[in-house]
Amino acid sequence: MKCAGDIDVRDVEEAYINIDPIQAGGRLTPGAMKALIAYCDGYSVCDNCRKPNRLDYIQKPPIDRFHRELAEFVGMDAARVVPGARRGFQAVADTYVEKGDPVLITALSHYTEVLAIEARGGVPREIPRSPGNIITPDAAADKIEAVVRETGKTPPLLFLDHVDYSYGNLHPAREIARVAHQYDIPVLLNGAYTVGVMPVDGKDLGVDFVVGSGHKSMAAPAPSGVLAARSERASEVFRTTTTRTDVTSRTFGIKEVEMMGCTLMGVTLVAMMASFPAVKERVGTWDAELGNTGLVVDALRRISGTVIVSQYPRQHTLTRVDTTQSFDRVAAAHRKKGFFFTSALKSRGIAGIIPGATRVWKFNCYGITRAQAEYVAESFLAIARENGIPVS
Amino acid sequence: MKCAGDIDVRDVEEAYINIDPIQAGGRLTPGAMKALIAYCDGYSVCDNCRKPNRLDYIQKPPIDRFHRELAEFVGMDAARVVPGARRGFQAVADTYVEKGDPVLITALSHYTEVLAIEARGGVPREIPRSPGNIITPDAAADKIEAVVRETGKTPPLLFLDHVDYSYGNLHPAREIARVAHQYDIPVLLNGAYTVGVMPVDGKDLGVDFVVGSGHKSMAAPAPSGVLAARSERASEVFRTTTTRTDVTSRTFGIKEVEMMGCTLMGVTLVAMMASFPAVKERVGTWDAELGNTGLVVDALRRISGTVIVSQYPRQHTLTRVDTTQSFDRVAAAHRKKGFFFTSALKSRGIAGIIPGATRVWKFNCYGITRAQAEYVAESFLAIARENGIPVS
Repeated sequence: MKCAGDIDVRDVEEAYINIDPIQAGGRLTPGAMKALIAYCDGYSVCDNCRKPNRLDYIQKPPIDRFHRELAEFVGMDAARVVPGARRGFQAVADTYVEKGDPVLITALSHYTEVLAIEARGGVPREIPRSPGNIITPDAAADKIEAVVRETGKTPPLLFLDHVDYSYGNLHPAREIARVAHQYDIPVLLNGAYTVGVMPVDGKDLGVDFVVGSGHKSMAAPAPSGVLAARSERASEVFRTTTTRTDVTSRTFGIKEVEMMGCTLMGVTLVAMMASFPAVKERVGTWDAELGNTGLVVDALRRISGTVIVSQYPRQHTLTRVDTTQSFDRVAAAHRKKGFFFTSALKSRGIAGIIPGATRVWKFNCYGITRAQAEYVAESFLAIARENGIPVS
Repeated sequence: MKCAGDIDVRDVEEAYINIDPIQAGGRLTPGAMKALIAYCDGYSVCDNCRKPNRLDYIQKPPIDRFHRELAEFVGMDAARVVPGARRGFQAVADTYVEKGDPVLITALSHYTEVLAIEARGGVPREIPRSPGNIITPDAAADKIEAVVRETGKTPPLLFLDHVDYSYGNLHPAREIARVAHQYDIPVLLNGAYTVGVMPVDGKDLGVDFVVGSGHKSMAAPAPSGVLAARSERASEVFRTTTTRTDVTSRTFGIKEVEMMGCTLMGVTLVAMMASFPAVKERVGTWDAELGNTGLVVDALRRISGTVIVSQYPRQHTLTRVDTTQSFDRVAAAHRKKGFFFTSALKSRGIAGIIPGATRVWKFNCYGITRAQAEYVAESFLAIARENGIPVS
C-alpha cells in the first residue's frame, strides 16, 4: 500500500515488535503524533514569533519554556534544539577546534564526531578501549599525556559517548571528565543513546556539554536533538553574531552564529515538545527497561555458542551479540543462508535486525512491554531449538 | 483546544487565508500529510538502509531516485537534502571560506548567509542595491573590483539571493554569475524563495550552487532544504571523509564531511518527497500565481497613500508594501492603534500580517485561489473605505 506517490506506507511499528538498534527510542508518543499533524506545515511554529525573533523566545507554542526545561532535564544551564546530535557536535567543534588541533575522541566514538572534527581540519585522536570495550579514565589520562607530548598542544575538546553505538556500553563519564579537566580540556558528552531514555545529569557528571538526539532517544522526528552547556561554555558556543555589514550597516541582533539562527521551525520541534512530558517520565522507569533487556539477553545466553559481546549485565538496552557459533552455523547449511534467521524472526512478528545478519548483530529492546520482551526471548530460543542449536 | 499537553492546536491554515510572508510555500500537500503520518518516527526512512549506508543510496522509500530528480529539477548535476537552506550555505562556506577572506553577499542577502560566513571567520562584503532595490551586474563588478583592490584577495564565494527576503525582488542571477565567473568566483544561488514555486534552472543561470528551502518553498516540514551543485563543485562540497583514526584505524566510507553524514532521516525528507510531484507541477503555474498577486497589489495601489515598495509589476508573490500614508494614519487615531488593521483582516478571515503592522509590511499570496485573491484584494479596499481612506 502506498501512502503517497510511490512511497510505501511504513507499518513496521504497527505490524511488528521492532528491536532495531537505532529506532527504539525515536518512536513518537501519541501526543507527538497529534502535534505533528497540527504543526506539519513548514514554518508552523512561527505564527507568534515576535522580537527579538529567535526560536527559543517564542512563547506560543511554549518554546521558550521548553528550552529552559530541556536544560534542566539534562542538568545544564542552557539548551538549544539542533537538527540532530551531529549538528550539536558540529557547533562545538566549530567553536573550539582550529586547523591541525588534536581532538580527543574514543575508540568507540560515533563517526559524526569524526566528521565534525575533520570539517574543522582537526585531527581525531582516539582514547583506546579496554579489553571489555570500556573507555577508562586511565586510558584517557594516558592518551592526553601522549598527545600533549607528541604534538605540544593540549587538545581543545574531548568527545565522550556516554553509551556507545557499537556495544551499548556505559562509560565512566564522571571519572573521564575529571581527568580531562585536570588538563583544562572541555568535555562533550554524546548522550544520543542516553538523553531521553535514562537519567542524565550533566552537572553531576561534570561535563561541559551534553548532546542528545531527538530521533534516537527522545521520541521525536528527524532531524532533531539538543545541545546543552554550562553557562561559562554557553556564552562561547551560543555566541551571537557580531557582524556589521559594510554597505547597509546591518546587524543581526541575537542570532547565534553556531546555530545558524533558528534551527527547528516546525514539526520536529513541536513533536519533541509534545513527547517531552512522557520522556521526562520514562527516564524514571529505566530499570524496568533494563529488566526487559536482561530477560532477552539471558535467553540468548542460553543458546549454545551465543556470546553477549556487550557489557554484562546490561546497563543499556542496545546490545551486541555474537552468534557466529550458533545461528551462523545454521546459516551455512540453510537454503535461505543467513536470511533464515531474520526471516524466522519476521514470521514471528519481530523486526529490526539487519536481514541476513547471523554473525555479529545488534538489537535494542527499549520501549517494548514485559510481555513483548518475554515473547522476543522465547522466539530466539524457539528459533534455536527448531534449527538444532542446543539450549541450556 | 490543545493538541498535546499545553500546545494549542494550530489551525491557521484551516481557519484563515494565510498570507504570511514566509509560510506560503511551505504548506504541505495532501500527499505529504499522509507520508508524514506514516513516517513520523525518528529514523523512519532507515528500515532498508544497506551498504554503503548513506541516506541518498536508500532505495525504499526511493530516496536515491529523489536525489537524482531533485538535481535535475534545479538544473544541477548533484543534490543533497539538508536541514534547511542555511545548512546548505554553511556547507558551501565551510568548503571555500578561510579566516579573513572577503566573501560577497548583497545588500539584500538573508542573515543566514552572513552567519555562515561569520562562522568561518570570513568577512561579508555587500554588493550595493540600486535605488529600485535590485542587485545589478555592474554593482557586482564594481564591488568585486573594490574588494580585490582593497584586500588583495579574490573573494572565494558570492552569495546571491535569487529573490530576496526583503522586497521579494527578482535579481539578474545570470548576468551577475557571468560577472563573478570573470573573476573565477563561484556563485551560490539562494533559491529559498524560488526553488519549488517558480522554475529555477541553475545551469541555465550559470551558477555553481543552487540552494532551496523545503519549509519555505517546497511544501515540506522544517527543517528541510536542498543543496545542489555542478559536478566540478559537487566533488568539493560533497567530498567524503578521509580520516583514518589513529588507534582503531577506522575509516568512514563515503560519509560526506559537510553533510555530517546523513541529514534528514525521517519525516522531513519523506514529506518533501511526497510533495515533490506536486511541486514539480506547480512551478509551471507560476504565472497564475503572479496574476493573483497582481490583483491584490493593484487593489492596494488604489488605496490613497499606499506604495508597493517591491519591484512593479510583481515578479514574485512576496511583496513589501508601505502604508505609512494610509493605514498608519488611521492607526494614529484608532482606539486599537496599529492593531486595527490586522484585527480587521482577521475578522475577515485573513491572517499572516504581523499584528500591529501598519507602516511597512510584507505579505505573500502564494498558493491561494483566484477567488481568495479577489477576496483579499476586496478586503484591503473595504478596510480602507471603512476607515475613510480614499480609494481610486
